[in-house]
Amino acid sequence: MNGKVYLVGAGPGDPELLTLKALRLLRQADAVLHDDLVSPQILSHAPRKAHIYDVGKRCGQKSTRQEAIHFLMIELARQGLQVVRLKGGDPLVFGRAGEEIQALREAGIEFEIVPGVTSVLAAAAAAEISLTMRQTASSLLIMTGHFADANDRSLPDLRPLLASGTTIALYMPGPDARVTVNRLAAAGLTLETPVALVSRASTPAQQMILTTLKELPQITMQAKPSILIIGDVVRLSQHDRLRLETLYGQPLPLLEPTHRKERDVWGTLQAVNHG
Amino acid sequence: MNGKVYLVGAGPGDPELLTLKALRLLRQADAVLHDDLVSPQILSHAPRKAHIYDVGKRCGQKSTRQEAIHFLMIELARQGLQVVRLKGGDPLVFGRAGEEIQALREAGIEFEIVPGVTSVLAAAAAAEISLTMRQTASSLLIMTGHFADANDRSLPDLRPLLASGTTIALYMPGPDARVTVNRLAAAGLTLETPVALVSRASTPAQQMILTTLKELPQITMQAKPSILIIGDVVRLSQHDRLRLETLYGQPLPLLEPTHRKERDVWGTLQAVNHG
Repeated sequence: MNGKVYLVGAGPGDPELLTLKALRLLRQADAVLHDDLVSPQILSHAPRKAHIYDVGKRCGQKSTRQEAIHFLMIELARQGLQVVRLKGGDPLVFGRAGEEIQALREAGIEFEIVPGVTSVLAAAAAAEISLTMRQTASSLLIMTGHFADANDRSLPDLRPLLASGTTIALYMPGPDARVTVNRLAAAGLTLETPVALVSRASTPAQQMILTTLKELPQITMQAKPSILIIGDVVRLSQHDRLRLETLYGQPLPLLEPTHRKERDVWGTLQAVNHG
Repeated sequence: MNGKVYLVGAGPGDPELLTLKALRLLRQADAVLHDDLVSPQILSHAPRKAHIYDVGKRCGQKSTRQEAIHFLMIELARQGLQVVRLKGGDPLVFGRAGEEIQALREAGIEFEIVPGVTSVLAAAAAAEISLTMRQTASSLLIMTGHFADANDRSLPDLRPLLASGTTIALYMPGPDARVTVNRLAAAGLTLETPVALVSRASTPAQQMILTTLKELPQITMQAKPSILIIGDVVRLSQHDRLRLETLYGQPLPLLEPTHRKERDVWGTLQAVNHG
């Protein structure tokens, strides 16, 4: 009999922002496939006997890798296992769950999606910025700043949205903010637009700064990923720590040693493939 | 010494979609102020001795009521209590947390925001619709369909957004979908646009239907609130239960009796005011 795959949101980073349901499923899991940003404390909820696979991105292996994740999930479920596919934030927001759902459907594997706290909510909580305001900010646009797949596409004109009171939250990509700023400027935003940048929200490495689009490329935050919040609500923020600093005065601690060696996913894949 | 106010997201409905942090704070709370949609199971985590206040909306008292909530939160904190202000979903998305943050700041009361799973994520999970897709849907617009405060404002033209691959999630208001459909049509959406309507996501009363904007006013779902998902991602949904039905074959059970009588917030307010 086939097992089941749970596509589970692990939340924004803080192990306490896991849901009770995610905790229960982790405790019952036979196998866990997790992304890079899921903390060791969260993984430690899985039973000692559970197989833990780090399927986070590695350079130069992106496209094959996604197919490998599909293959591994499906094979484990076919062995009758309860599989938790653990993703940072929420699985349905920039989590590639769409592709994984499609693969599971085609393979006829039962699955269930368990929502999580998406990172933008933790960023706004840290900065004490309400993303909507009853009279002024009636909607929220969540975008990815990762334009690698959309180099030929420009953003739509964002001015009507901002004018109608939309808050924009941008999941920031790699180190070069200049590309992001240029694209936002091309979409109609003035360089004086106030923005709040929050990186690694809800973790000990959390950093925040209140600035403008123009200043953004000058800011170097070590901790990634970051969320950029744009819109009038930023002006309402009065967080006294909303400047460049580490909240807890220390960098993110090194990853704790897990209580069992993480299996090498590629070795296992080959074993599954040929075994 | 003053206490502290925690603005806490209770998640979309399922008591298991509470975060571990919300659970801990509830267990330590001296007072809990909660909205209508927070389930009795979640409230039962508070200690027996905690004061529980239902500050959900009541007809005709809306504007005074928000001020009354501010007053009550602040007075309880001034008495040195740990106060949990518990909101459905996430506090910073259509939760009026902005106003409460402002009031707490002005009163000099320490506060902290604890994010939660916002309802749109539970709706998408139920319908098995990925809100973003790597190649096609690169952003998500979350809007409220509650236009009571914005009767004189029309929506911005939504066509450029939809054309650029934006998924729209609309928090639906009261019973009249016709107003919502008319406003979406005025913003450029054709009546043939496919939509998924999910109400009371993640609760036993959950209902889902796949339809078009044109058909929406004909659909009567008893359970409120609902989320409307609009965009190409809806076409990708193949959820076999994505039609009008109750998932568990039964309506939401009547509210369980709580283990202590809920205090009358108005009586208490008067007591605080005069005592």
